[in-house]
Amino acid sequence: MHPLSNGFSIFMLRRSFLANFLEEPMSTGRFTLPSESNFAEVSRALAEKWGADAIRNSDGTHLDDDVLSMGKRIYSAYFPTRGHNDFMEERMHTVPMVFLLSERTLAEDITLDVPLMDTYFAEQLQVNRDASPAEFWEVIDRTTGDVVDASEWELDAQSDVVHIHCAKPMHEYTVTFLAYVIWDPVQMYNHITNDWGDKEHEIAFDPRDPEVRDFMFTTLRTWLADNPHVDVVRFTTFFYQFTLIFNNERKEKIVDWTGFQVTVSPGALAEFEAEYGYRLRPEDFVDAGSFGSSFVYPSQRQRDWLDFTSRFVQETMRTMVDLVHDAGKEAMMFLGDQWIGTEPYSENFGTLGMDAIVGSVGDGSTTRMIADIPGVRYHEGRFLPYFFPDSFFEGADPSIEAWDNWRKARRAILRSPLQRMGYGGYLSLAAKFPTFVDAVAKIADEFRDIYDRSGGKKSATHLNVAFVDAWGKRRSWQEFTVAHALPNKYNRSYYGLLESLSGMRVNVTFLSFDDVLAYGIDPSIDVVINAGPAGSAYSGGDIWTNSELVSYLRSWVRSGKGFVGVGEPTAVTHGGRYFQLADVMGIDKEVYRSLNVDKYWPQTTGEHFMNQDIDLDSLDFGDPIINTFPINESVTVLSDRDGEVQLATNNYGSGRGVYLSGLPYSATHARLLERALFFAAGKEDEYSIWSSSNPDCEVAHYPEKRLIAVVNNTEIEQTTTVTLDNATRELTLPGSGIEWIEY
Amino acid sequence: MHPLSNGFSIFMLRRSFLANFLEEPMSTGRFTLPSESNFAEVSRALAEKWGADAIRNSDGTHLDDDVLSMGKRIYSAYFPTRGHNDFMEERMHTVPMVFLLSERTLAEDITLDVPLMDTYFAEQLQVNRDASPAEFWEVIDRTTGDVVDASEWELDAQSDVVHIHCAKPMHEYTVTFLAYVIWDPVQMYNHITNDWGDKEHEIAFDPRDPEVRDFMFTTLRTWLADNPHVDVVRFTTFFYQFTLIFNNERKEKIVDWTGFQVTVSPGALAEFEAEYGYRLRPEDFVDAGSFGSSFVYPSQRQRDWLDFTSRFVQETMRTMVDLVHDAGKEAMMFLGDQWIGTEPYSENFGTLGMDAIVGSVGDGSTTRMIADIPGVRYHEGRFLPYFFPDSFFEGADPSIEAWDNWRKARRAILRSPLQRMGYGGYLSLAAKFPTFVDAVAKIADEFRDIYDRSGGKKSATHLNVAFVDAWGKRRSWQEFTVAHALPNKYNRSYYGLLESLSGMRVNVTFLSFDDVLAYGIDPSIDVVINAGPAGSAYSGGDIWTNSELVSYLRSWVRSGKGFVGVGEPTAVTHGGRYFQLADVMGIDKEVYRSLNVDKYWPQTTGEHFMNQDIDLDSLDFGDPIINTFPINESVTVLSDRDGEVQLATNNYGSGRGVYLSGLPYSATHARLLERALFFAAGKEDEYSIWSSSNPDCEVAHYPEKRLIAVVNNTEIEQTTTVTLDNATRELTLPGSGIEWIEY
Repeated sequence: MHPLSNGFSIFMLRRSFLANFLEEPMSTGRFTLPSESNFAEVSRALAEKWGADAIRNSDGTHLDDDVLSMGKRIYSAYFPTRGHNDFMEERMHTVPMVFLLSERTLAEDITLDVPLMDTYFAEQLQVNRDASPAEFWEVIDRTTGDVVDASEWELDAQSDVVHIHCAKPMHEYTVTFLAYVIWDPVQMYNHITNDWGDKEHEIAFDPRDPEVRDFMFTTLRTWLADNPHVDVVRFTTFFYQFTLIFNNERKEKIVDWTGFQVTVSPGALAEFEAEYGYRLRPEDFVDAGSFGSSFVYPSQRQRDWLDFTSRFVQETMRTMVDLVHDAGKEAMMFLGDQWIGTEPYSENFGTLGMDAIVGSVGDGSTTRMIADIPGVRYHEGRFLPYFFPDSFFEGADPSIEAWDNWRKARRAILRSPLQRMGYGGYLSLAAKFPTFVDAVAKIADEFRDIYDRSGGKKSATHLNVAFVDAWGKRRSWQEFTVAHALPNKYNRSYYGLLESLSGMRVNVTFLSFDDVLAYGIDPSIDVVINAGPAGSAYSGGDIWTNSELVSYLRSWVRSGKGFVGVGEPTAVTHGGRYFQLADVMGIDKEVYRSLNVDKYWPQTTGEHFMNQDIDLDSLDFGDPIINTFPINESVTVLSDRDGEVQLATNNYGSGRGVYLSGLPYSATHARLLERALFFAAGKEDEYSIWSSSNPDCEVAHYPEKRLIAVVNNTEIEQTTTVTLDNATRELTLPGSGIEWIEY
Repeated sequence: MHPLSNGFSIFMLRRSFLANFLEEPMSTGRFTLPSESNFAEVSRALAEKWGADAIRNSDGTHLDDDVLSMGKRIYSAYFPTRGHNDFMEERMHTVPMVFLLSERTLAEDITLDVPLMDTYFAEQLQVNRDASPAEFWEVIDRTTGDVVDASEWELDAQSDVVHIHCAKPMHEYTVTFLAYVIWDPVQMYNHITNDWGDKEHEIAFDPRDPEVRDFMFTTLRTWLADNPHVDVVRFTTFFYQFTLIFNNERKEKIVDWTGFQVTVSPGALAEFEAEYGYRLRPEDFVDAGSFGSSFVYPSQRQRDWLDFTSRFVQETMRTMVDLVHDAGKEAMMFLGDQWIGTEPYSENFGTLGMDAIVGSVGDGSTTRMIADIPGVRYHEGRFLPYFFPDSFFEGADPSIEAWDNWRKARRAILRSPLQRMGYGGYLSLAAKFPTFVDAVAKIADEFRDIYDRSGGKKSATHLNVAFVDAWGKRRSWQEFTVAHALPNKYNRSYYGLLESLSGMRVNVTFLSFDDVLAYGIDPSIDVVINAGPAGSAYSGGDIWTNSELVSYLRSWVRSGKGFVGVGEPTAVTHGGRYFQLADVMGIDKEVYRSLNVDKYWPQTTGEHFMNQDIDLDSLDFGDPIINTFPINESVTVLSDRDGEVQLATNNYGSGRGVYLSGLPYSATHARLLERALFFAAGKEDEYSIWSSSNPDCEVAHYPEKRLIAVVNNTEIEQTTTVTLDNATRELTLPGSGIEWIEY
């Protein structure tokens, strides 16, 4: 139970807090505090305690004059595409649109009625009856794949039901229809989560419409003029919402944090056709229910749409950034909600003039996703927990999540620094939890201390690793993501790789298959990783029938490099193999095409460089990859369970292949991956220096400063031996502790 | 420890046995005893004890005159295609041949040497250098799939290495070459297993050669004339050996009990081309390493070859059967070694005049495979253990295997009777184990008793079930088989279905997809089963893109029938589904094409007809089928583990779908399947009658005789309540017990 009872008055709370805040913070700066209206006194106290040098408002809040006059830098959230319902009510044809797919509906007879909206949230979505269904929609027989001619169906606009006149009995049909998104999904999410009742629904708008775009620019100009006190315009975010569609039970139905679904409109489709010379189909968007998932290998048509949309978004964004600069302010982008088309790893992002980026730190991977973005002057991490009632409720101890979040992020920050930190949400909520307030004070001090000691530099890397998939650099640190920083059953075996790498003393590069085919792999790279489920954009699917790719990688590994395959790497049924680089890894998967051939397993090896100090039996290798097997008896199998391989290695020319079935994140798993990478690279000799004997502790090395930081990645005390240049050091670190050693 | 010590003399053994055999058997007949030379006295005693009415020799043994004059029917093993090395030594070009695949060999340069025989057993196989390699072989770039022109490679006949002149570096190559099988694989197996040392290797011959065929017929004629005492010619088997290829370590390398690999020759290929108008490629046989596996969906070319070979084999076999009949003897076929082309479920088998069939009883499924064969007058089961040193060694108790084998077979015999039983191997070995001798006496008596009480009739079935796969009737009771009656990691989840059904009170029909498409499903069928790994001939792979098949089955189930899908049924990526009948079963598998769509699971249901009296948590559902999920919240999920579905059901029109992830055989698993089938058929009301409350006991019902048999399928005592017409009966059965009840 939290000590504050329900009836405790906010006044008493403030007094007790103020008393508590008399201590000065160790340091100040690099910290952004969220504030809100009628909360100046506590805001001031917390700003002092947390060493804040900047203050911002949150969604739906405004800053008091008292707060504005505290002498801090002022960030203001700015929403370019919502908050003007009066303007939009007359222009509902310019709200963002999306192609939705009806449920699959079975024809029991030669006519069939397909209801469109039965499983969609009517407060969010509305059938677009304005753009001709015959022209823009598609009815598909999913049993054959055939498109039903538009003359054979019609919309009943009263009931939002499509009548198909000549269906084939026992075939399933879908209707892909254009829908208006009439409620901004972020406000909708916040509205439902916070139970805002009859608060007005905000209507978003699509900047493709010239009148809307003009309105946006004019509104921004006016706002800039009206808000001289604002130093930093924090765009939250720009124009198009990532895919977030709710169902008829007000629950999430479709989600994709990197999804381009809600960027479509008749106008945009026409512009696309004019530019690219071909017309996109509704099916290019819904893809039989994939909805442009990043797990599906992107088609050329999909890539064209991404490029087309990104160019438009970035042009419009550049105009806004210029307006901000003209007003003498800084432009900051929140890598969050309406970020589609602003992909910060796209080629042109660095040229857009954005001053800063801020993003939500969910874990180490998302920290790196923010910290590694090129072309901005500074990067700010918004840490968790968000000050919302889902974490801050009576009896909760949000400091637990704060420390957990900090430990995950810290590993990553030591590798690639953030310049600033902050929190988000409602300060009035956070202020009720003194343990949390203290935790943030400590975290903020440590954040600044790391920055100062490291000089804001990256720690040294000792290995160069390239991740190879269909997306490459464009989705750096976003691989395997569905919802932001939320691993689930389907991706946890793979996402753990990124999370492990995010805080590892290796340099990580993201390459696409196209990059490898066009430019090869830079000689500085030591190890290539290919990971993911078979047939996905991450594993690669059919690309592995490309003999150039396969032979290039074989030759590259044989020259003395490493290849680490995870899950179903290089998988496609072709030429008598399933894993096309089975010869490199020594492991293939039986897909019931070689059952006639006996499989003789080598003895499982006990002792090996890769599992030194690691109890393989205790590890979670993720979901089993069924029916993997060593291709011959010279393969070294380190772990197998129920007849499946979890960890194996194979010599390949002068290089090495390693196979791992999967790797959810844990400190020990990260250690195993680190060892596997050094081993694959043939650099076992370089492993122990600048390292910690205890997998729960990691070392960041700053050679220019002759300094190392040792962190304890757990909440309990840890003892470790750290190996320096030519000495070792025994250390005991408290839970979440960090220690700096000069050498 | 067995009571017989090593030094115990065979003489003392005989005396003690003879004393023991004074008791008469309860009954005689229907039993075939294997005998051997110099073993008349014990043979006579065991014949009495086991109630034998027929005596046969085993591979490599002869019967004594004393045995021949015992007044029993005499079976003689007959090997049409071996045992005449003198004849064959001059005709080594007429030994059976096979297309072998070299190991995949990586080109590191533009020339490449591929050794052919490095991993093959040189005592069994020899490169065929007589048939032009350029004409008959194939060199394939497995990285591209391209065939290398014959002008670009050549064989070094000294070293059996193929030199490729213009390889592509970093591509893998294979050579498919024709090889002579110079050692009969059955004799080889027995030779190696029994350590026969320098005993001569028997050379098999290929009956395609007219001279060989004439020799075979002449030899048989002479043999028939020379062996007037023989009543039954037991062909062991006919001409072509199933695929059994050994490696350079004298261990099994390639095996397929239903495999047609060793039927090829230049002559046969030419005849085929003349008849079918196209030429088969080596790749049609080796198929990138599948070697014609029955798990791979059979191509039209493969089916053509099977038909072509079967016709030839059956014609030749018919000639031999006629010769046997002309000599006044019976012809019996052993469904065993050289049975390729004699498939007893092929259309014409019943017309060949064969009198009897005998096969090895490995379990219930193989019992049914023998017992259900149409067109012969009687079926004999050869029970296990085989009297070989691998089961009969000092300290062993082979009676354990005998009882286990009997319990498995008995379930099946009660459903579909065998007319005769017997054992095989060396009687002198078996005679050393008195516990075993007693066990066989009891089993033989019980076998005869079942036959007598049931009148040799099948027990009543209460449900009609059809198994649907690519093979259908042609491979009845042979589904999922690689080696005879040997479940392994890869097939155990599926083979258990057959084993469960083999002793279940259901009528089982085997249909091919082609049957369903051509003729539909007979209205008498209650439930269709589709089972197997994705993409296999059993699950069906691409056939499920056939909208006729899919819509036919939908309509069939909706009319009030049942569909049971096991493993990855109806699986192929098409139209937004992976399981094409996901709508029927309520379950689909996430193949990373719908991760953007939220999956909401229904509550797992506890109580249900399907798991009444069964603890689902204790079951082994086989290897997990990863990422299965209910397609909506109206699906009933009965069991799920680690986020995967094991057992679920769905209403579909007036019918029902059931999904099971897998089902290795056990009594409880068989019970679950039985319940699932009755439930799918909507016949729960008819379930409890003629059934046993205890899953370890089963009931066979003979309505004409107003009789039921209750069997205990375990080796320990069981108590059960049996439901009759309008009464129940409590029973306690000893381990392996059977009880008959008249009502």
